[in-house]
Amino acid sequence: MASTTPRRPPPVRRPGGRSSRVRAAALSATLAELTEGGYSGLSLERIASRAGVNKTTLYRRWGTRQALLLEAMLDYVGRRVPVPDTGSLREDLLGLARAAAATATAPAGEAVVRTVAGEAPWDEELAAANRRFWMERFELDSAIVERAVERGELQTGTQPGDVLEAVLAPIYFRLLVTGEPIEQRFLERVVDLAIMGVAGDE
Amino acid sequence: MASTTPRRPPPVRRPGGRSSRVRAAALSATLAELTEGGYSGLSLERIASRAGVNKTTLYRRWGTRQALLLEAMLDYVGRRVPVPDTGSLREDLLGLARAAAATATAPAGEAVVRTVAGEAPWDEELAAANRRFWMERFELDSAIVERAVERGELQTGTQPGDVLEAVLAPIYFRLLVTGEPIEQRFLERVVDLAIMGVAGDE
Repeated sequence: MASTTPRRPPPVRRPGGRSSRVRAAALSATLAELTEGGYSGLSLERIASRAGVNKTTLYRRWGTRQALLLEAMLDYVGRRVPVPDTGSLREDLLGLARAAAATATAPAGEAVVRTVAGEAPWDEELAAANRRFWMERFELDSAIVERAVERGELQTGTQPGDVLEAVLAPIYFRLLVTGEPIEQRFLERVVDLAIMGVAGDE
Repeated sequence: MASTTPRRPPPVRRPGGRSSRVRAAALSATLAELTEGGYSGLSLERIASRAGVNKTTLYRRWGTRQALLLEAMLDYVGRRVPVPDTGSLREDLLGLARAAAATATAPAGEAVVRTVAGEAPWDEELAAANRRFWMERFELDSAIVERAVERGELQTGTQPGDVLEAVLAPIYFRLLVTGEPIEQRFLERVVDLAIMGVAGDE
């Protein structure tokens, strides 16, 4: 009979398990601290204290406030801005535009957006985390365009990035630059112009 | 013979006169102070000292740092982003996009843009000055679209704001939000999508 050394099973990360509770508390505390205290006051110490978890746990798992903020952004936006799949390009883009506008103007979303706009030039780690965030989001949202191409609503070769930028950029332009209001009619107009823009492409 | 009371002639503001020299020094000092010291350190006192003019002169003429900043923005952007009139909508929009991108990424331009993005929610005077800036710029730049309609390049009823937002928004989206590079090919793509977007409109 072969001798067997008992081995400790790998830690199980069940939803609802301790690890998952720590993560949820840390991500939520990160956005709450940023929203209330701004980026300059954001630290793993303060996040740990607000989340009621050990500071060393955050250091071991995320290392920096920027890494934790990236995961908080992905989680927050992932829950609030699902990738629509209605069977219609226009409806999918409208759903995306509405959810993106609602999220970017919600307190935590706006705090993140304005922090990045104000601080990214002086904080390479923040800028890198933000670029990864947008790469992941554009990759997810590209499915909207790819499915529209499969359905024959858009031509083969349509660049998802062109469509997504045309839909999202005017929302952030009004929020951060001109201060003009972001209403439903504006979002519909932006979506229609984006679709006609790439549809006019040969 | 009617008796005439000698009246003092109104002050003449010649280009190159004292008033115009004070204005030029104040506007340039405003942007230099903002670029180097940030918005929190910007004050009429510091601007006066840098410009070598009397503080009370600035107070009497502009009243607030936000009013002075608005005039500095209009002057700076007015000199760097002229409204193109080449006889071609695409060339006009390309000229606008290139000048806007160059200005928004120049040190003083970027300082203004990031200040507004970061501070406008907390500073109603700054937000109002910024809205006036964009109203004036959109009004000026609308001429590009109106001339294209007169030439028959765009349909009657085309909204200048739709075209201008479609061209400008992606530039600021990359600068402030995604951090993606703003290259010539991107600017051309943005202009072409904007034109096709409104051209597809019935």
